[in-house]
Amino acid sequence: MSGAVTGGFGELIGVELLDLDPEEAKARIAVQDRHKQPHGVVHGGVYASLAETVASAAASAALEEEDMIALGQMNSATFLRPVSDGHVNATARTRHRGRTTWVWDVELTDDEGNLCALVRMTVALRPRPRDAG
Amino acid sequence: MSGAVTGGFGELIGVELLDLDPEEAKARIAVQDRHKQPHGVVHGGVYASLAETVASAAASAALEEEDMIALGQMNSATFLRPVSDGHVNATARTRHRGRTTWVWDVELTDDEGNLCALVRMTVALRPRPRDAG
Amino acid sequence: MSGAVTGGFGELIGVELLDLDPEEAKARIAVQDRHKQPHGVVHGGVYASLAETVASAAASAALEEEDMIALGQMNSATFLRPVSDGHVNATARTRHRGRTTWVWDVELTDDEGNLCALVRMTVALRPRPRDAG
Amino acid sequence: MSGAVTGGFGELIGVELLDLDPEEAKARIAVQDRHKQPHGVVHGGVYASLAETVASAAASAALEEEDMIALGQMNSATFLRPVSDGHVNATARTRHRGRTTWVWDVELTDDEGNLCALVRMTVALRPRPRDAG
Repeated sequence: MSGAVTGGFGELIGVELLDLDPEEAKARIAVQDRHKQPHGVVHGGVYASLAETVASAAASAALEEEDMIALGQMNSATFLRPVSDGHVNATARTRHRGRTTWVWDVELTDDEGNLCALVRMTVALRPRPRDAG
Repeated sequence: MSGAVTGGFGELIGVELLDLDPEEAKARIAVQDRHKQPHGVVHGGVYASLAETVASAAASAALEEEDMIALGQMNSATFLRPVSDGHVNATARTRHRGRTTWVWDVELTDDEGNLCALVRMTVALRPRPRDAG
Repeated sequence: MSGAVTGGFGELIGVELLDLDPEEAKARIAVQDRHKQPHGVVHGGVYASLAETVASAAASAALEEEDMIALGQMNSATFLRPVSDGHVNATARTRHRGRTTWVWDVELTDDEGNLCALVRMTVALRPRPRDAG
Repeated sequence: MSGAVTGGFGELIGVELLDLDPEEAKARIAVQDRHKQPHGVVHGGVYASLAETVASAAASAALEEEDMIALGQMNSATFLRPVSDGHVNATARTRHRGRTTWVWDVELTDDEGNLCALVRMTVALRPRPRDAG
């Protein structure tokens, strides 16, 4: 389950999943010009998207044997410090694992370990959709 | 200022700016597989990223003659209804234009006009950085 | 269902319910010194509490015949402009009424109609608990 | 600076300040019927109000010698587990102390140590207003 995401938005933005442990999941993006906004720093949407990707992947991995999936319900990002090179590193921790929702706190840091953004996410648990085939 | 975004994250995710009026700015993304998460619907990060792009662009356009720029400080997305084809359409309205911050409410709809996500954003106003050249 | 709230936190903080229409519910608080923080303006918690009270009351009233109740899941307040006298007036509109959650946008204004705070709330719908008696 | 808050909203809702260390400030409220919503559990506004009180008090105490005050800009509460007796205990930690804003993460627990709510707050730093006298 870890490694570069293949397919979809996770691949488009270059997410590398490092660890999907639901207690503390990790992922990162190697910063390139294509991640930046017009003022030369990483676009705010990158932090929100990376956090959403790692938290949803880790929740869905943990819920797989219960035949459940995790769908984002809320994603709230606070931007603290710009990043312009190296990686955006995400560490996602579950603060609540309920029957219908999980709440994640995701810290985004640069390669020097500075805290650059905070994301709080709520994912809703749903039964896995049946395949059409 | 309107048209397809060129360069950076706005181009990567395919944002088309339609109107940068600070009272009511508009932009959209034509949904493709590269915008989706593993369950086949548009990734939550797309809504946050589109909202951030249009609100920042419209604020920066309006602030240009005051030699100010707008930097995202907070981006809070609530997901209501999945989108899997057509466009994600964003309409961003300023609810507050203060001396140091602007607050935007962004509605994200599908091509049938259904409300699919809500994003509330705060941007901080900063003096435009001097060019190095 | 309208009028001064009796009992509990709604009474403590002096909420007056004016209209519980789930499309557009209204309530207010007459500002007194007991609503202020040390710098002489209405405490941020008052806006959050008033919004939570009116949205929960209107949702529960609408859901009564389905034997459901509404419990706050998220309450996100953005403070725009201080209030120091008159009323804090709340207008709450539902932006989403789903099977498991409702999302409310609440505007808080002063008596001159200035927008002073914005609250976005998600309430979770639950079956009404059985009485013990 | 610690002890029961006297005056204003902090006194009305019964906040007891325990520690105003800006790294980790603490406060609590002894739960009474006047803190509850109609379903018999602590009202969501209590968590938001307690978090706002302790974070603002601790920030203002730390900023006093710089002649600055802290005003709430954003207060975002996620409710995880109801409380119906004992105390609501708040622990507030600064995640960011910038030149213009501080960001706090506040955990709210019951007397058994269960996590009951999470509040993320942004306070804006402003010069202390001159006294009129």
